[in-house]
Amino acid sequence: MNHPAPSPGPAIRPAIAALEGSLIREIAEANIGRDDVIALWFGEPDEPTPQFIKDAATAALAADKVFYTQNRGIPELRAALARYATGLHGRPLDVDRVTVTCSGMNALMLVSQALVEPGDNVVVVVPMWPNFRMTVAIMGGEARLVSLAPDAAGRWQLDLDRLFAACDGRTKAVFVNSPGNPTGWTMPAAQQAALLAEARRRGLWVVSDEVYVRLAYEAPRAPSFLDLAAPDDRVVVVNSFSKSWSMTGWRLGWLTHPAALGEAFSKLNEFNVAAPAAFVQHAGVVAVEQGEPLVAAMVERYRHNRDLVFQRLAGMRRVRLARPEGAFYAFFRLDGMTDSVATAKALIERAGVGLAPGLAFGPAGEGWLRLCFAARAQTLSAALDRLQPEFD
Amino acid sequence: MNHPAPSPGPAIRPAIAALEGSLIREIAEANIGRDDVIALWFGEPDEPTPQFIKDAATAALAADKVFYTQNRGIPELRAALARYATGLHGRPLDVDRVTVTCSGMNALMLVSQALVEPGDNVVVVVPMWPNFRMTVAIMGGEARLVSLAPDAAGRWQLDLDRLFAACDGRTKAVFVNSPGNPTGWTMPAAQQAALLAEARRRGLWVVSDEVYVRLAYEAPRAPSFLDLAAPDDRVVVVNSFSKSWSMTGWRLGWLTHPAALGEAFSKLNEFNVAAPAAFVQHAGVVAVEQGEPLVAAMVERYRHNRDLVFQRLAGMRRVRLARPEGAFYAFFRLDGMTDSVATAKALIERAGVGLAPGLAFGPAGEGWLRLCFAARAQTLSAALDRLQPEFD
Repeated sequence: MNHPAPSPGPAIRPAIAALEGSLIREIAEANIGRDDVIALWFGEPDEPTPQFIKDAATAALAADKVFYTQNRGIPELRAALARYATGLHGRPLDVDRVTVTCSGMNALMLVSQALVEPGDNVVVVVPMWPNFRMTVAIMGGEARLVSLAPDAAGRWQLDLDRLFAACDGRTKAVFVNSPGNPTGWTMPAAQQAALLAEARRRGLWVVSDEVYVRLAYEAPRAPSFLDLAAPDDRVVVVNSFSKSWSMTGWRLGWLTHPAALGEAFSKLNEFNVAAPAAFVQHAGVVAVEQGEPLVAAMVERYRHNRDLVFQRLAGMRRVRLARPEGAFYAFFRLDGMTDSVATAKALIERAGVGLAPGLAFGPAGEGWLRLCFAARAQTLSAALDRLQPEFD
Repeated sequence: MNHPAPSPGPAIRPAIAALEGSLIREIAEANIGRDDVIALWFGEPDEPTPQFIKDAATAALAADKVFYTQNRGIPELRAALARYATGLHGRPLDVDRVTVTCSGMNALMLVSQALVEPGDNVVVVVPMWPNFRMTVAIMGGEARLVSLAPDAAGRWQLDLDRLFAACDGRTKAVFVNSPGNPTGWTMPAAQQAALLAEARRRGLWVVSDEVYVRLAYEAPRAPSFLDLAAPDDRVVVVNSFSKSWSMTGWRLGWLTHPAALGEAFSKLNEFNVAAPAAFVQHAGVVAVEQGEPLVAAMVERYRHNRDLVFQRLAGMRRVRLARPEGAFYAFFRLDGMTDSVATAKALIERAGVGLAPGLAFGPAGEGWLRLCFAARAQTLSAALDRLQPEFD
């Protein structure tokens, strides 16, 4: 086709062209499905979704739940989530504060769309799963990284003074993910209260990613901002069905927010995906209403895995790690490693194990690797056998 | 809880607080599921998804297709879509140009994220389904509306000179939706070629929403920019499974774009929803590979409906309309109506029929109403019987 060359100038927004891709995805995408690799790179259980949840989706399909739904989710699912939160936090949570989303990821994007415009910043605690700060970049804002630091025992700690020192007049929100991916850092309730008090004083939003709130190993569950916040506080809590109910590939999550934001999130849902698939939402109702025995069994299994992985890794000469309090990752320092991406790639070929490189979680993560232990114990043992000669 | 009032200042971005909600949603949401209302407000077939597509999803669930997938979609679905497009347009279309998305709506949001930042504008042909211009507003850009105008016979026509007169140095893209929702306007191939040539000259993107391309009543299908564009042209085509395969509630769509944008759309998928649900993608493969008899039967059914609805509406005293060439809407002027939203609400209560108000499609739509004819003929007849006394 004979046509003049397009005018010069960037084809797409420079901010999008320059967007860092997920380094986890960079490691994984080319190797998804390889039989010779034990894949522990994603934050994803290796067990498929439980049968009773799949059955609910199949039944909803058979019942023709295949049409558009309300933008904020079907009433049954919102009501089920409000009841669930009321029970979990021991205080009433009104359905007006619940909006269903197309995954926790999508919830984070909606939050950035609601809060962030060019010139704004969000203060983000790292090392952290990178995707939230990428939504800030997509909206033209700045993510200011404040790093956790390990204490003498190797446990990650947040210095709230450093967090607030990073805030200025254009700070819209503080973002925390506890229990944290990749660190397992679990923010103590007293520190959450201190953060909330200061955020109230400054008029800041707290965006709390609590997708791992059920995966706590030193307490029945991790502390939550929903234990503390008043209904109209500037607090948005992001949740997901992916981790607690083994529904990663389903793309189902929800937001808890002040009721006054319901209309805004309804509109943002309409203009992003409209709502999750109808039959997926119906499966979500069954998951949340009948899933408690599943969650309890899962936490026990992951606790066993955590101890197994910790014990094995701690015995390898080059590895430094603390026992994680929550989530389902071993995040460990590897002595002598200066390029975690190159190392993660090399481990796929040399050891047949897929890990996530620490750099994926921010510059503070360089020198570290992440192993997801939401896998069968024998799979983890086999992976650790393969890793031992590399890490010794 | 005793705490100081939050600081003053907007709780969320003013642009989001001020975002117009969908007026279609405003009419419909409170009335979804009412037995006494014939709902023709959404652009949604009243027949559920065909059994063979539901069966494919059920089989994929049984086969545990419940995990994360590649960000641009499973390879089988991208390959199937590339083959489908190659066949439909009679020219090879490489799989590198295909990215699967979580609905056509989500595809539009990704396009605005890629192209639009504050100060930018997009020129949009209206009357049009409002959601694309809302994505421009969310990204801080300006949607400049250029209105189609009816010719002597009442057929909508686009004046390209007016379109280009609305462009300036900050115009990033021209957006067209043909066949158009709500108008049924179908852009002729020669006009597409003229638009493409001028867009090349100016370095503008053409964003073409072709979700109704199969629903054409005067030709085997509507003209497409994919018939004309070179692989590296600044052309992005949005498609969806919703309309042609009756999969509205599934949230599955795809983008066709220059291969050079594959990486950007991969990242944008990762940071928006990651990818559609795994088993939904597997159902999409079956829909696109085995759906041709379904599409052919559907077009015949809609053609019959179009003629039925046109004939009945044209016989009502206050109604003015042209026979639509594509899509599945009757968009008609109602003499004496000055408030389409109030009228649409009144028709729900007085006639038990749900229509979409013309104002939902931009100011040029005031005075008009939209009826979706993707419904059973007897349902349409019953609705028209109810509307007749209102419109005579």
